[in-house]
Amino acid sequence: MEYPSTTTTTISCHHPNIVDIQKPLPITSPMMMEKMSKSETIELRNKHVGPSVTLFFKKNPLKIIRGKGQYMYDEKDNAYLDCINNVAHVGHCHPAVVKAATDQMQLIYTNSRFLHDNLVVYAKRITDTMPKPLSVCYFVNSGSEANDLAIRLARSHTKNKDIITIDGAYHGHLTTLIDISPMKFLKIKGAKKKKWVHLTSLPCSYRGKYNLDNCESSSEIGQRYGEEIKQIIQDAHDQGRQIAAFIHESMISCGGQVLLPENYLKNVYKHVREAGGVCIADEVQVGFGRTGKMWAFEYQNVVPDIVTMGKPMGNGHPIACVITTPEIAESFARIGTEYFNTYGGNPVSLAVANAVLDVIEQEKLIDHGIQVGNLMLEELEKLKKKYSLIGDIRGVGLFIGIELVNNRRTKEPATLIAEYIVARFKENRILMSTEGKFGNVLKIKPPMVFNESNVKQFIFILEEILQDINYMHQSRTRSSSLSSAYSSDSISINGGNGNYNNGQNGVENNISSDSLSDEDSSIISE
Amino acid sequence: MEYPSTTTTTISCHHPNIVDIQKPLPITSPMMMEKMSKSETIELRNKHVGPSVTLFFKKNPLKIIRGKGQYMYDEKDNAYLDCINNVAHVGHCHPAVVKAATDQMQLIYTNSRFLHDNLVVYAKRITDTMPKPLSVCYFVNSGSEANDLAIRLARSHTKNKDIITIDGAYHGHLTTLIDISPMKFLKIKGAKKKKWVHLTSLPCSYRGKYNLDNCESSSEIGQRYGEEIKQIIQDAHDQGRQIAAFIHESMISCGGQVLLPENYLKNVYKHVREAGGVCIADEVQVGFGRTGKMWAFEYQNVVPDIVTMGKPMGNGHPIACVITTPEIAESFARIGTEYFNTYGGNPVSLAVANAVLDVIEQEKLIDHGIQVGNLMLEELEKLKKKYSLIGDIRGVGLFIGIELVNNRRTKEPATLIAEYIVARFKENRILMSTEGKFGNVLKIKPPMVFNESNVKQFIFILEEILQDINYMHQSRTRSSSLSSAYSSDSISINGGNGNYNNGQNGVENNISSDSLSDEDSSIISE
Repeated sequence: MEYPSTTTTTISCHHPNIVDIQKPLPITSPMMMEKMSKSETIELRNKHVGPSVTLFFKKNPLKIIRGKGQYMYDEKDNAYLDCINNVAHVGHCHPAVVKAATDQMQLIYTNSRFLHDNLVVYAKRITDTMPKPLSVCYFVNSGSEANDLAIRLARSHTKNKDIITIDGAYHGHLTTLIDISPMKFLKIKGAKKKKWVHLTSLPCSYRGKYNLDNCESSSEIGQRYGEEIKQIIQDAHDQGRQIAAFIHESMISCGGQVLLPENYLKNVYKHVREAGGVCIADEVQVGFGRTGKMWAFEYQNVVPDIVTMGKPMGNGHPIACVITTPEIAESFARIGTEYFNTYGGNPVSLAVANAVLDVIEQEKLIDHGIQVGNLMLEELEKLKKKYSLIGDIRGVGLFIGIELVNNRRTKEPATLIAEYIVARFKENRILMSTEGKFGNVLKIKPPMVFNESNVKQFIFILEEILQDINYMHQSRTRSSSLSSAYSSDSISINGGNGNYNNGQNGVENNISSDSLSDEDSSIISE
Repeated sequence: MEYPSTTTTTISCHHPNIVDIQKPLPITSPMMMEKMSKSETIELRNKHVGPSVTLFFKKNPLKIIRGKGQYMYDEKDNAYLDCINNVAHVGHCHPAVVKAATDQMQLIYTNSRFLHDNLVVYAKRITDTMPKPLSVCYFVNSGSEANDLAIRLARSHTKNKDIITIDGAYHGHLTTLIDISPMKFLKIKGAKKKKWVHLTSLPCSYRGKYNLDNCESSSEIGQRYGEEIKQIIQDAHDQGRQIAAFIHESMISCGGQVLLPENYLKNVYKHVREAGGVCIADEVQVGFGRTGKMWAFEYQNVVPDIVTMGKPMGNGHPIACVITTPEIAESFARIGTEYFNTYGGNPVSLAVANAVLDVIEQEKLIDHGIQVGNLMLEELEKLKKKYSLIGDIRGVGLFIGIELVNNRRTKEPATLIAEYIVARFKENRILMSTEGKFGNVLKIKPPMVFNESNVKQFIFILEEILQDINYMHQSRTRSSSLSSAYSSDSISINGGNGNYNNGQNGVENNISSDSLSDEDSSIISE
């Protein structure tokens, strides 16, 4: 595993005023861009949008009117530093991307049954970034559509049905993908794991079953998790079942910003392929250079059979893609029916996707992400030395997780504190959220234009919050628990919360409800 | 059923020169808009796009550079009259829609976890077009995503799994939707109908099991097909299975441009609801006023439990929607996990969707469609009187089918002739394609700005082709069959072809291969 080495630059960050929050643009007043007041918006939304479609900060959600670079602006034109919207990859509303879309929209916006250069130019460019056999594209509209198609490709190629998926994984919102997304189906009341789905442990070197405490090296961890999959395959065979595919994110996002242990994929791919299955790398969240390489699977020195990509691909525009080998594509063609996706591969989506690639190249965003990410990791490591709440810092490039624990030895997840920290960040106009089974991992996945000044701002505020938490912890004068502060929020669908029975003895009980100056106690991670 | 009555306007159409083909715009030369030659585009496409993703006119596909209104233009700026692209609902590249997208793209393009007025304004507007209980929206990116979510909603509400679907139906390209799309899964080698899928006959009053030959009225046909579903439900119950939903297009598109018989949905809904199931109206192809009413289900005087919509909704932009009742939405929320769709409901998609509604209203496109559609139907009826090849003319508004038969008594499908006609239309720069199990139904589903002049042009060319076919039929001097003309095209995935063993005795054998002046023998319908 060749993660870029961190440098040792020192930064000073004494006061948030040093941070350059981007100034509002001289455009029409945001007030003018509202069609109604925020309360009216909320009222209509409550009436006409399904309650399963949740808001960030449910009790006091943000109305976002405009965005630029790494900032989002509310209806009063307050700027929020965006640390979580990985879709706005090259920055919110990048002018080159907007121009590409605008120009193409005026010409033609139709389906892929007609030839168009945008499609083939992109297909060539994107497959040129892949190891050789990965040369055939299918353009779709979302990461979910991409993963669903990947499953169809795997099944038609192998003639098998079963899928091995990683515990804690999320691969999309469609029927078949919910079935292979333990993060989802394990929460659905009455839902059971399908027989064709096989779960393997989350290969987390910090909290996983095999970790740096009970293994000697990352390589040993990678080997042990590989052996687990070998056993899963054996068990499936014993039941007369056959494996179609192993699907994995190349770094685990919703599962808690987890980097895979050394040689993990190499070991797993070997076992899966020996069993006649194919390997699907889901790069929907981690692709396009976020991690310092164009594709996160490159860190594992493997070549997947199928790669899916989405979110950053269109910088907000609905486009996604599946890339596979000619052999698998031929198998899919042989099933005897065409694949048609009405909007998939339309000239506008591909004008946008081409522009995003241009910006990544021209602005050298991959190198930039590594540089800024290294600074962030370095500063976080310094905080970790000072604050025992930080159990683990992990990441590469602008894919970073901060795992919070009440006790470093027991690794008891500090779920409520994580929520508190997110709420405090919001007060400071920084957008953050959590990931992981226990919702105790702060995720950092900002637009790639996030800069060193933003790191300073982030670190300054985080330390301020950590100091306050320490103070509250030390004072131990108040009796009510943070739990009660959060229990007032009735959402049942907080993506980040697992089933860990939180702290009877932890730090969390020492943070009183009134230390929350905001009512933003509900956050969503996904 | 209250289809709008046809008027008896007479038009004269003696020569195509009277037809006003829209002139090229004074924009950059189309040549300049090509990044490479057509042959290079094809070469790259063959290399980098999955072979299951097929082109119209596979042997000599069109490279479309721009579109305007009901016209598409190739790389030489030849204009093609578009009779089939129902996605470009208010006309290709409508300036108001382009402007709405452009304006919003410059402001913000993010997810629905932040409040935005575009979303709630649209949710109110679109639910205002629905019968009252249908008031809750879920925004997604494609008709496929919408239908998949509809299935999830139905299952979570009813706690049942099974789906009743119509033979010949197509509901999308996702794993679960292929399973309920007989048009697809019946063609997949080795694929079997899943146990949870129940097929009911295509309720076609012309060719169906119950039809105007063996029933006394449309109402009787509707009743008999309803009874079939009652029996299907009984059989499912006997096997210990329970119905989650009946899914149907409100007029059947890919199945062959079929209008439902009178009271069909009323009868079916009754049986399905008595069995504890819900009813899903798929309006992805037929919604937004194409048929003369905003929603095609309105013709059947029913209120579905779930409605899905897509294609025309964004005039090419990837957006779709599911609308349901508060009760079903609540059931879905109660399963215990959120529904998040990264791009679904983003402000740009909804700016586009709002603009499409504006144009439909401002340009009175629903009334316009009825008027133009009536003229088309009337002219087609005249041709039907003259040409026995036309077995059936059916439709309403700009949703029209022309079913071709070699023999009006046996209704033997004239599949190859349909393909020949489509190829001849292309020579005349008119885009047409076929639908139906036998690929013998010419479909007319143009952008709604299609006008009376376009009808004249279409009818003039169609009659010219029909005359030629008659001439060839009468001459009977040539021996080779049309079959051989088409057999040279090796595509295995011609969506329109069924398994009917074509004409040993029909007209088709009398059309010689060299009567095809173009090699465009393969067309795709979906």
